[in-house]
Amino acid sequence: MIPTLEWLPEGINFLDQTKLPLEETYVLATDYKQVATVIRDMITRGAMVIGVSGAMGVAIGIDRSTATDIPTLNAEVAEICDHLAATRPTAVNLFWGIGRVRDLYNTLAAANTPIPEIKKAVVALSLEMYDEDIANCRTLGAFGADLLPQEGTILTHCNAGALAACGYGSALGVIRAAVEKGHKISVLADETRPYLQGARLTAWELMKDNIPTTVLCDNMAASLMSKGRIQACIVGADRIAANGDTANKIGTYGVAILAKEFGIPFYVAAPWATLDLATATGDLIPIEQRDAREVTHSNGRQMTPTGVGIENPAFDVTPFKYITAIITERGVLKAPFEESIRAMAAQ
Amino acid sequence: MIPTLEWLPEGINFLDQTKLPLEETYVLATDYKQVATVIRDMITRGAMVIGVSGAMGVAIGIDRSTATDIPTLNAEVAEICDHLAATRPTAVNLFWGIGRVRDLYNTLAAANTPIPEIKKAVVALSLEMYDEDIANCRTLGAFGADLLPQEGTILTHCNAGALAACGYGSALGVIRAAVEKGHKISVLADETRPYLQGARLTAWELMKDNIPTTVLCDNMAASLMSKGRIQACIVGADRIAANGDTANKIGTYGVAILAKEFGIPFYVAAPWATLDLATATGDLIPIEQRDAREVTHSNGRQMTPTGVGIENPAFDVTPFKYITAIITERGVLKAPFEESIRAMAAQ
Repeated sequence: MIPTLEWLPEGINFLDQTKLPLEETYVLATDYKQVATVIRDMITRGAMVIGVSGAMGVAIGIDRSTATDIPTLNAEVAEICDHLAATRPTAVNLFWGIGRVRDLYNTLAAANTPIPEIKKAVVALSLEMYDEDIANCRTLGAFGADLLPQEGTILTHCNAGALAACGYGSALGVIRAAVEKGHKISVLADETRPYLQGARLTAWELMKDNIPTTVLCDNMAASLMSKGRIQACIVGADRIAANGDTANKIGTYGVAILAKEFGIPFYVAAPWATLDLATATGDLIPIEQRDAREVTHSNGRQMTPTGVGIENPAFDVTPFKYITAIITERGVLKAPFEESIRAMAAQ
Repeated sequence: MIPTLEWLPEGINFLDQTKLPLEETYVLATDYKQVATVIRDMITRGAMVIGVSGAMGVAIGIDRSTATDIPTLNAEVAEICDHLAATRPTAVNLFWGIGRVRDLYNTLAAANTPIPEIKKAVVALSLEMYDEDIANCRTLGAFGADLLPQEGTILTHCNAGALAACGYGSALGVIRAAVEKGHKISVLADETRPYLQGARLTAWELMKDNIPTTVLCDNMAASLMSKGRIQACIVGADRIAANGDTANKIGTYGVAILAKEFGIPFYVAAPWATLDLATATGDLIPIEQRDAREVTHSNGRQMTPTGVGIENPAFDVTPFKYITAIITERGVLKAPFEESIRAMAAQ
């Protein structure tokens, strides 16, 4: 398995997803500020890997600190966490990842644990979270596989794959699990403007696994659905509100509406950490607006007239009513989501 | 007004739409084969201008012929028409444009009109069609203007503007007419993958007219609609079947479904020549599949992994049930379209 990110003695090594599919290169982040840059510039991206990257970012920040007393280190950790949290506002996994390592740090610091032991413990936790992420994807993949048809074509949007996680993937994890169980599945990958995660990343990782894959422009889905060429849709999530409203890559909402219009099931696959029970509805999820240049330029060349207005929200929020099921490593959630999410949270 | 195309003594001069918005350059076609290349390679594009280009292509073919007798010229004309007709299968205006000049030729040839007179007549007809196209756009624009709100934001897909016609435009003609009448209109232009006619062309021509314009990726419309930021949608058409089903640039179908879901009116604006009464329903409209390279590459750089499957249908067919009204220079058609189209055809 190609590592999306890897903790090495010299730093955290990230597969540079901006260079795929043509180049397999890596960016080594040797301090927490470099980790933040990697997240902000989308060298690594995808809710799950952002969560683990946030955790590893805090861990490397603590591990590389030269502080010799807890109060100094406390101040540094606050700064590290704030800096990492400021990179991407929508994916709740980022805050969850940062928070888990920070919480462990706080407990150990409050107990006056020796700094070398604290360092060891926070690094170990971030590595555990890495393994956990892959295990969660495999578990939710197994839960979701049976929802997919024995034979058919699945539309996915953006990349909720091995590359969006530490490996295996959520939406693509479900597809992988179905293929492992013998389902004859081919995939239609929306190219996913403006960053082309589908065209570049989903296509690349599925081809590596020999799963038949076709790239389409985002605007072609309605035409293919109308011809009966899509049997199910499955996407990942960056944040799921307590009522099931789901923030995911811009364009997901449109796919969900089309799926409903054509009577095609629409699934969301995400680890439990993506559920944000503190956020009641999707309206309350902050949506990141990214640089206009992602839309205006392509490979350094300007595509639009100078000075034209540009929209570039990175995400949209699909209301729960369009979602057939939400697949997590704890099980499959169905409508009414508010109740099923609350019940699963209580387990 | 910047000419989309212009008949000059030395040939037909086409604004090179592949170079917009950064360069305003022209391609001179001095024979019918060069006109066919201009159409096929989308140096000029858009249903209306394709119609007039087809007409001028036949006219230049006849005008430049060295044939000295009618039977020789007949054979040449058949070859000219076939060659031009093979460029783009979906836009019915192409066949209408070719057909009108060919019909005049046939009548004159059958009457043994002297060849110099035939040449003069076919050129004159193609120039008349050019003027007619602009007049039609102005007339349909005036009919459509009142359908748009006094104030609001209109989403358009692709470019059904001055650049898709000899001037003024159909969908953008309606917007222009509304603005001329004092409506406070701003425009959201879908970028329209893979060829980016919205990002490149619609944005360019509306900015030239000082109509406030914002470009969005095709997959952002649902998000903006859900926030109440779009008051109406208006698009052009490449062919309208006898029941109102409308072929237009890929992605139109999706926009229409979204508009219905959010209760937003969805208008089609097209000259009467776009109505194909010989085609009963949209299922019978041939859909052009274009080169995969339009999707896989951007500015010469490959975006997708080598060997991945690619979908690239250039058009889709929006079923009539999603269309609020069809605006033509003969008047506004409303549901039931089969009846209203038949009635207007009989006028």
